[in-house]
Amino acid sequence: MHKNEHMSVRTPDPDPEWTPDPDDARPPDGANPGWLSDVELAEVRRRLPLLYVEAVPVRVDGLGRVIEVGVLLRAKSTGEMTRTLVSGRVMFGETLRNALFRHLEKDLGPMAFPQLPASPVPFSVAEYFPLPGLTVFTDERQHAVSLAYVVPVTGTCDPRQDALELTWMTPDEAATPEMSAEMEGGRGALLRAALASVGQLR
Amino acid sequence: MHKNEHMSVRTPDPDPEWTPDPDDARPPDGANPGWLSDVELAEVRRRLPLLYVEAVPVRVDGLGRVIEVGVLLRAKSTGEMTRTLVSGRVMFGETLRNALFRHLEKDLGPMAFPQLPASPVPFSVAEYFPLPGLTVFTDERQHAVSLAYVVPVTGTCDPRQDALELTWMTPDEAATPEMSAEMEGGRGALLRAALASVGQLR
Amino acid sequence: MHKNEHMSVRTPDPDPEWTPDPDDARPPDGANPGWLSDVELAEVRRRLPLLYVEAVPVRVDGLGRVIEVGVLLRAKSTGEMTRTLVSGRVMFGETLRNALFRHLEKDLGPMAFPQLPASPVPFSVAEYFPLPGLTVFTDERQHAVSLAYVVPVTGTCDPRQDALELTWMTPDEAATPEMSAEMEGGRGALLRAALASVGQLR
Amino acid sequence: MHKNEHMSVRTPDPDPEWTPDPDDARPPDGANPGWLSDVELAEVRRRLPLLYVEAVPVRVDGLGRVIEVGVLLRAKSTGEMTRTLVSGRVMFGETLRNALFRHLEKDLGPMAFPQLPASPVPFSVAEYFPLPGLTVFTDERQHAVSLAYVVPVTGTCDPRQDALELTWMTPDEAATPEMSAEMEGGRGALLRAALASVGQLR
Repeated sequence: MHKNEHMSVRTPDPDPEWTPDPDDARPPDGANPGWLSDVELAEVRRRLPLLYVEAVPVRVDGLGRVIEVGVLLRAKSTGEMTRTLVSGRVMFGETLRNALFRHLEKDLGPMAFPQLPASPVPFSVAEYFPLPGLTVFTDERQHAVSLAYVVPVTGTCDPRQDALELTWMTPDEAATPEMSAEMEGGRGALLRAALASVGQLR
Repeated sequence: MHKNEHMSVRTPDPDPEWTPDPDDARPPDGANPGWLSDVELAEVRRRLPLLYVEAVPVRVDGLGRVIEVGVLLRAKSTGEMTRTLVSGRVMFGETLRNALFRHLEKDLGPMAFPQLPASPVPFSVAEYFPLPGLTVFTDERQHAVSLAYVVPVTGTCDPRQDALELTWMTPDEAATPEMSAEMEGGRGALLRAALASVGQLR
Repeated sequence: MHKNEHMSVRTPDPDPEWTPDPDDARPPDGANPGWLSDVELAEVRRRLPLLYVEAVPVRVDGLGRVIEVGVLLRAKSTGEMTRTLVSGRVMFGETLRNALFRHLEKDLGPMAFPQLPASPVPFSVAEYFPLPGLTVFTDERQHAVSLAYVVPVTGTCDPRQDALELTWMTPDEAATPEMSAEMEGGRGALLRAALASVGQLR
Repeated sequence: MHKNEHMSVRTPDPDPEWTPDPDDARPPDGANPGWLSDVELAEVRRRLPLLYVEAVPVRVDGLGRVIEVGVLLRAKSTGEMTRTLVSGRVMFGETLRNALFRHLEKDLGPMAFPQLPASPVPFSVAEYFPLPGLTVFTDERQHAVSLAYVVPVTGTCDPRQDALELTWMTPDEAATPEMSAEMEGGRGALLRAALASVGQLR
């Protein structure tokens, strides 16, 4: 039903140190004072809301209409499979556009050729809290606020790092309750909001 | 489950000449050249896209969060019951704000006290075509393009004209497939897009 | 200062029958009942608001940031030169996307390769009235409501019909009072709103 | 020309420890682990982008149209007067709505009765960097990302803390280069974007 970019799924080999946001553990460049050690990041996560960007990769037709939506499949350290969106932290000194591009490249590979939107206004702002109830989004690690964008990609997606594969599906498939149930942190709601923002939610 | 503004439902007394947009048949003021006779309107409807405004009435809490959504219940000329949103045509010489206010007053009564949004940009643009397939929205009478807004109301709603009642429901209730199935012209999709635009679609 | 796509400006040769929206005079296909004769169009223009789409063509860099804005230069039938945006009417039975693409092709040529936005929500809705005062936009011919979009173009623009040339300029140049003063119908305000929507208005 | 809520300007009595965001120095409640000491805050500011919310207070007419814009006048520790918007940090565990409401109350007083927007999507996202050039916004203290909203207020504004007064002005007055030049951190651009988002920028 779904078309996968990688039909031969790599064997999941989860790193016990794996985090859904592994770039946090490596500095973008050695001298950046914005780099945080694991201990420091753990500390900051209990003190401040962290700023994230999130992207829903899509394929569009010649008139710009969204015809397919890309969802990432990941293996958690427990071995459990989960679906998610392109997502990652904004670093100190980094613009939102640069962060968005960096995480798209990290998750979809260098040949995805994402077309970042001209407008920096997100289609939605997702607020993740450690405890459920305040919003529909949860992240047990932290309080994160995520600016979410729909991003057309025109090239070939080659998921890297912890993403096992990128699954392309129709807007209708992406909006099903089954798909929502598989998405981590309540991102099914974010995916539906993305579809609504492009006029593709029934 | 749903709270109705009018618990004692008036007996449906459908006018055979009834249209969902009855203001078309009466001039806002006698001398307006924008007034169209029934024959003229029928003619225009086969030649031009008509411009509509549409509103999803909501109740908000003290922080502006949407807690209830209002949906109109109407009787069609066939006696069939159907649900819809506040909706109506923009007249010649009329601003979008004036049209939106006029239709809110027509459908919710003079004491609804709608708070029109500061921004004239709609949360969605719904394209209705006589034949299905081009979009999810249909209107057998015409090609209509509708600018849709979420509008908080702070007063008492007293549906008039052809609306039998206004039903208040939670965002979750409004988003169910059952509710969508009851809404005319595919407006269930528009209602969900409204919920997504205010961060209330799961 | 400005880069023009056509440095050798063609001699203005205004057609006395010229209208800023010449496609109105020709059916998209012969049998379309939405085609209006000049007499019929003149009649409709005094009775109904007409639905338009409008586009601000832009060049973006690799991160999607707008670096140049395209403005059309036209000769009016009086010989006067005026600046405008890509603009045109939505025909009966035509989707907004099709109308937007058709007018971009009409005004920028077939090799412009516009990237229509994934979202059908405009950055602004411009209301044009025959008489000034209701809004900042005027159109002496009619009451028109225009859904306006920022559209990146990646190809070569070759203005056709009545557009003498397309002038590319920086966002700062496009936002000057001088440029606004040259734009017809108050579209300088629309151009600034376009820049603001992409974070490029100082 | 401008109407001020406080015509009798209090004598500026700048605290040498003054910061434009004084709530950072006090915990919302004593036990909140999100409270940062001055030393910790100074440290974090060199390591992470901080999340802010920002509000442009407006007065609207009965149709929701913006007729006046509120701008705060402050005294900096140098004695220099500067204009700014309602602005402040989002605390750990706090929703965006709660942060927005808290800062509106802090800056406009408890009787302002702000009507927070139903949609959590900002009209603009302003990125402030210590060094100029990356964007039009600067903040020498930190890298801050600010979600900006237009917020109608219906009550009486009574600026507190460091805001000397709130000046109400027309949209045209707010958009002048003179006003922009007086606003700190490049917020004149944000104010114009706010006006554009509500269709009030010429």
